[in-house]
Amino acid sequence: MNVSKVISTISEKTETGITEVYLVACGGSLVDMYPAKYFLESEAQKIVTGLYTANEFVHALPKRLNKDSVVIVCSHGGNTPESVAAAKLAKEQGAHTIGLTHNKEAALLKHSDHAFLYEWGEDSDVKNNPMAIILELVVEILNTVEGYVHYNAFQSGMQKINGIIVAGKKLVAPRAKVFADKYRAEDLFYILSSGASYGHAYGFAICSLMEMQWLNAAPIHSGEYFHGPFEVTDKETPFILMMNEGRTRALDERALTFLKQYAEKVEVVDAKELGIGTIADEVVEFFNPILFYSILCVYREALADVRNHPLETRRYMGKVAY
Amino acid sequence: MNVSKVISTISEKTETGITEVYLVACGGSLVDMYPAKYFLESEAQKIVTGLYTANEFVHALPKRLNKDSVVIVCSHGGNTPESVAAAKLAKEQGAHTIGLTHNKEAALLKHSDHAFLYEWGEDSDVKNNPMAIILELVVEILNTVEGYVHYNAFQSGMQKINGIIVAGKKLVAPRAKVFADKYRAEDLFYILSSGASYGHAYGFAICSLMEMQWLNAAPIHSGEYFHGPFEVTDKETPFILMMNEGRTRALDERALTFLKQYAEKVEVVDAKELGIGTIADEVVEFFNPILFYSILCVYREALADVRNHPLETRRYMGKVAY
Repeated sequence: MNVSKVISTISEKTETGITEVYLVACGGSLVDMYPAKYFLESEAQKIVTGLYTANEFVHALPKRLNKDSVVIVCSHGGNTPESVAAAKLAKEQGAHTIGLTHNKEAALLKHSDHAFLYEWGEDSDVKNNPMAIILELVVEILNTVEGYVHYNAFQSGMQKINGIIVAGKKLVAPRAKVFADKYRAEDLFYILSSGASYGHAYGFAICSLMEMQWLNAAPIHSGEYFHGPFEVTDKETPFILMMNEGRTRALDERALTFLKQYAEKVEVVDAKELGIGTIADEVVEFFNPILFYSILCVYREALADVRNHPLETRRYMGKVAY
Repeated sequence: MNVSKVISTISEKTETGITEVYLVACGGSLVDMYPAKYFLESEAQKIVTGLYTANEFVHALPKRLNKDSVVIVCSHGGNTPESVAAAKLAKEQGAHTIGLTHNKEAALLKHSDHAFLYEWGEDSDVKNNPMAIILELVVEILNTVEGYVHYNAFQSGMQKINGIIVAGKKLVAPRAKVFADKYRAEDLFYILSSGASYGHAYGFAICSLMEMQWLNAAPIHSGEYFHGPFEVTDKETPFILMMNEGRTRALDERALTFLKQYAEKVEVVDAKELGIGTIADEVVEFFNPILFYSILCVYREALADVRNHPLETRRYMGKVAY
């Protein structure tokens, strides 16, 4: 499916243009939506957005939802019951639904007015992965409804990001091995970031570490770190700090300064050093999480290797009733 | 100050009525705003809301902010630099600012069009604490701008909640002692909840445990638990589950069912058992976090006692440069 075609088709069917964009999913798929939420909350003057874990959307449906709302639902396997229920409910309310999945037999597709069967895996261009597609969808919506002055800069960034990632992954590969070796026996990590990337701090904690490695983990917003969380900082506790390029970099830099002084186990992944600065200043911040997702995959693979804990191993998910 | 007077005064000065409510603070004060965000996202059909850690608001100001926006800023000491900067910036943009603080000399007051010097401490009625005042402010805004059909039920609930809390604190006091004794040597807790109370799951983790006890902690949304986090569940890992009354209770119940089967260290704090059900069904969910805040204070005090780690002890906050 073509992003601009989908949005123009939906737009023509609305009474007054698209008024809301609801981003609804669970776990890793919800993480893929955070950059789109951040983008719209930052850039939009008319369009309203909301980010919901699917079961909360289903049980506490926002009263604002209406026939001119777009509800984007993402589910990798496409059969997550609460995500399918959310899409079904949205359609029943008359909203326009866009479903994203990697499974062409997904139940989600039955309740999606428009669907994206996205690419996945090592060899795919990140612009065809869900995080980028969802971001493109909301950029297209913003541009259609109220105009987006940096639309061309954004599209140009989207053409560049995969190349930056390919180079970045090579650069960090040896570091990730050192990291994995150094931290192989740790049982807890704090993940810090800000801006569009806060969602991926959450994502790396709950998916890569908790789900895939059965390690304790928690995300911390770099801006919130100084208002409680930093009291656990000591020389024994490991932190991973994802440093953004763009407007919220100052928040990450402040956290780094403190960590350098009071912590010793600190791994910094810096988007600026990884070359994201070739993307235009006006839009670069929205691409940080796309970069971090791929770069942190190199780290989690290295950790899985030294811990002899394959990333696919589960004890509950898909194995027991819940 | 009087909530309805403040809102009518602001409302008269707007061109088209209040269009946005921005909730801006750091740490524990940000936690106090989450129920208001949840309320508006659920109930409003016109008013837009956004919740921001203050430094992100300052560095990445939402383009939507305008002369008809209300920016609510809360800071207990009233001098948190990024919160003061947020209020200053909001005023410079022409927005209406409401400041809440416990300090009548607060710098925040210089940038607040309207101010609430709130009560604090054991003996104050919770309706005079910031979480309740902020919730009242947004309920008043919703009622003024677009009408709120459950306005009277909400006001009636606000009259009841303190009595429910007083009785609930007595009920949990012996349990909290047993809890503290049982978990005195733990160094990590996961805090689960949903709906309006998710903010307090975050708050109990980052303020009560990380900041005040230097314990590792992380919040988990009950709806997200099954999409990653639950893979860390085992008989050794402690969980505190705050069970809401209202629409999202089903999410908390699902988490409880799983925890009962696969975990052994589970502390349940159930708003229903604590008597919140005397508040009307249509509004009860918004009061859960007000109850949980006070009830969990009993738990944290018991924990601080057995650990000989006073709640006021800090190693960095207010002691070193950051």
